[in-house]
Amino acid sequence: MRMVDVIDHKRNGGELTNAEIKFFVDGVVDGSIPDYQTSALLMAIYFNGMADGEQAELAMQMLRSGDQLDLSDIPGIKVDKHSTGGVGDKTSLPLAPMIAALGIPIPMISGRGLGHTGGTLDKLEAIPGFKVELSEDQFKQQVKDIHLAIVGATGNIAPADKKIYALRDVTDTVDSIPLIAGSIMSKKIASGTDALVLDVKTGSGAFMKTENQARDLAKALVSIGQNAGMDCMALISDMNQPLGRMIGNALEIQETIDILKGNGPADITDLVLTLGSQMVVLAKKAQTLAEAREMLETVVANGKALESFRQMVVAQGGDGKVVDDPTIMPQAKYKVDLPAKTSGVVAKMTADEIGIASMLLGGGRQTKDDQLDYAVGIELHKKVGDPVQKGEPLLTIYANREDIDNVKTLLYDNIEIADSAEPITLIHEIVK
Amino acid sequence: MRMVDVIDHKRNGGELTNAEIKFFVDGVVDGSIPDYQTSALLMAIYFNGMADGEQAELAMQMLRSGDQLDLSDIPGIKVDKHSTGGVGDKTSLPLAPMIAALGIPIPMISGRGLGHTGGTLDKLEAIPGFKVELSEDQFKQQVKDIHLAIVGATGNIAPADKKIYALRDVTDTVDSIPLIAGSIMSKKIASGTDALVLDVKTGSGAFMKTENQARDLAKALVSIGQNAGMDCMALISDMNQPLGRMIGNALEIQETIDILKGNGPADITDLVLTLGSQMVVLAKKAQTLAEAREMLETVVANGKALESFRQMVVAQGGDGKVVDDPTIMPQAKYKVDLPAKTSGVVAKMTADEIGIASMLLGGGRQTKDDQLDYAVGIELHKKVGDPVQKGEPLLTIYANREDIDNVKTLLYDNIEIADSAEPITLIHEIVK
Repeated sequence: MRMVDVIDHKRNGGELTNAEIKFFVDGVVDGSIPDYQTSALLMAIYFNGMADGEQAELAMQMLRSGDQLDLSDIPGIKVDKHSTGGVGDKTSLPLAPMIAALGIPIPMISGRGLGHTGGTLDKLEAIPGFKVELSEDQFKQQVKDIHLAIVGATGNIAPADKKIYALRDVTDTVDSIPLIAGSIMSKKIASGTDALVLDVKTGSGAFMKTENQARDLAKALVSIGQNAGMDCMALISDMNQPLGRMIGNALEIQETIDILKGNGPADITDLVLTLGSQMVVLAKKAQTLAEAREMLETVVANGKALESFRQMVVAQGGDGKVVDDPTIMPQAKYKVDLPAKTSGVVAKMTADEIGIASMLLGGGRQTKDDQLDYAVGIELHKKVGDPVQKGEPLLTIYANREDIDNVKTLLYDNIEIADSAEPITLIHEIVK
Repeated sequence: MRMVDVIDHKRNGGELTNAEIKFFVDGVVDGSIPDYQTSALLMAIYFNGMADGEQAELAMQMLRSGDQLDLSDIPGIKVDKHSTGGVGDKTSLPLAPMIAALGIPIPMISGRGLGHTGGTLDKLEAIPGFKVELSEDQFKQQVKDIHLAIVGATGNIAPADKKIYALRDVTDTVDSIPLIAGSIMSKKIASGTDALVLDVKTGSGAFMKTENQARDLAKALVSIGQNAGMDCMALISDMNQPLGRMIGNALEIQETIDILKGNGPADITDLVLTLGSQMVVLAKKAQTLAEAREMLETVVANGKALESFRQMVVAQGGDGKVVDDPTIMPQAKYKVDLPAKTSGVVAKMTADEIGIASMLLGGGRQTKDDQLDYAVGIELHKKVGDPVQKGEPLLTIYANREDIDNVKTLLYDNIEIADSAEPITLIHEIVK
């Protein structure tokens, strides 16, 4: 088989055979296919797409290119959740302990943030002492002991994806649905979970700008997961404005604790409970979503969910006092309010630009090697639909430097105050 | 500027700016743009094409990446001809001496053959002693002296094209009209000619299988040439069956001499005179095509065209006796007739497969490093539309080995005898 013929097949709109996909993935991993041929195929896939069977095979071959976690000795139906990433999206952090508090094992392998979106692992590292790197044995033992662990990928998971992703990033082939879906699902299937709930974001702060794109991606993800024998569903949720009120690493841990205490903002609390209900049902701990939601509300009300979070923090080397006193995390030197310039109703808060503002403060990475400042970020006082008086603070900037004029300008440019606002629907649809 | 943004611009259907095209071509030549980004852009160009201005700029930037011949000290309007390549297409060989015999300077830079098509330089090298490598000064002096030289590219002509072509070959981005046009025209403009006649082939033996594709390519070529200030036109001609009767290096020189003596096959003679008439008009030596054609017929009839050919052969170190005795060129050991299996009319002679048959005999190259056998090839006795009796020879195979069963099979498979044949139109249209 010759790679140029595989490229030709896809370029001319054909469906790659399983043998061609295996040849490609094997060749990427063993280096026998040069990068310039890989990138030509990636661009051809960008233009011509992939059929359901093709993209499932691509994900499976990328999965088989590396190690797979075997979690079969952990009793129970293991569930996981994956989000395509957004601004202020700390959903996993309160969700996982709620699920674990119901005795459902949740072995979560998470990632770091890049660009305008934050990463779960980065946020957890704002807690003094918290370690995200566990050995496979430690990871499994912790899930057995307390039903919950959140760690970075260990071992050689989907090396084909690592190589392909690095190329996609520099060849403008990132936003191809079969390639996104293969990348996400090869890693999620490798993580050994039995069931998976996907949160596909749509809107200005999401990868998928339109609901149609988000739906196509959600369908691709669910279809690949089901094809691999996983119990799988997806939610399409809004990312036009940031989620919750806090953006920044320590700030989002603080908001996580608020949510676990039942004092979180309405939007993220609703999203956590909606995703969580689906997970409880997939784990067969409840018959209906309503029943599941009530169980989750109970473990929040009786403190078991917060306790579960504290247990995880301690098990992973962190300081458990954080649940009572979030100020043990790094604190910003300056807190600067951003007053509204006019009165009216908040009509728009462009999520990605607000994420970039937090990144510029030091809360996110522009390049992979950037060091994070855990203390900085943004606290929103107003969200879309809220009335505001001229001079009233729209948000507070948490900074460790005095000169933040560029951040202020960026924020003003991306918050619109008008006479009225279009209401935002948080949860758009469910894809099974 | 970042290459990923240039790729993005084209991938999203935009027109690259002149600055982006320059950035790309410069980066390819100096190696600062890695091959995987180049191939991603090439594939995006394959899918989204290029506007007229864009492809003209691409050709000009590729041209500027290397040396340009300055022929301004050769008096007169210099004309050249380029064919996109076909089987049995020795057009340049009789055409150039006819033009030169009219006192029109024809400084021709030609190529070698690969795959099923032959190269002008290879054919000339079948003449004992013939040299295709001249210095720039020798080349110009010869054109001044005898109005004619046919040589390989000298110096560092369009190095960007060399690199890009090598990548296109292995990334399945060869058949993209803006890329083909840029490759051809960057080299042709660099050769310093004032006027250019293009012969764009269409049909089974051509790169452009359909007339629509051929027309698009012809328009792109002419538009780039005119944009560069060249007087330029294109002819679309048929390549469904081989041109003339001879395929193979020495055999095609022999047919060239026949044409120059006025004894050539009708099809190629007509094509040579049609192309030549356009060149004579572009060189402003005639007012009308009819007048130009008569002038060309005159230099054939009075022997001046043949003498011009002989002068070139001698000037480039070859044995001038070839024009009187073609058997001084390498001769094949075996001549094997291929008899018709049935009676009827020749309905099809698939050009590319017959070209491959000649290649398999040793007359062409499968890979760039193959050595040629100048003696071998195929002489057609029948062409499409000719009646044939069972047992009558369709063609003669000139071989230097006895076992040619694979060649015979390939030829039989690609010659169709039927009750009747669709007539073939040789010259499809003219694009100015």
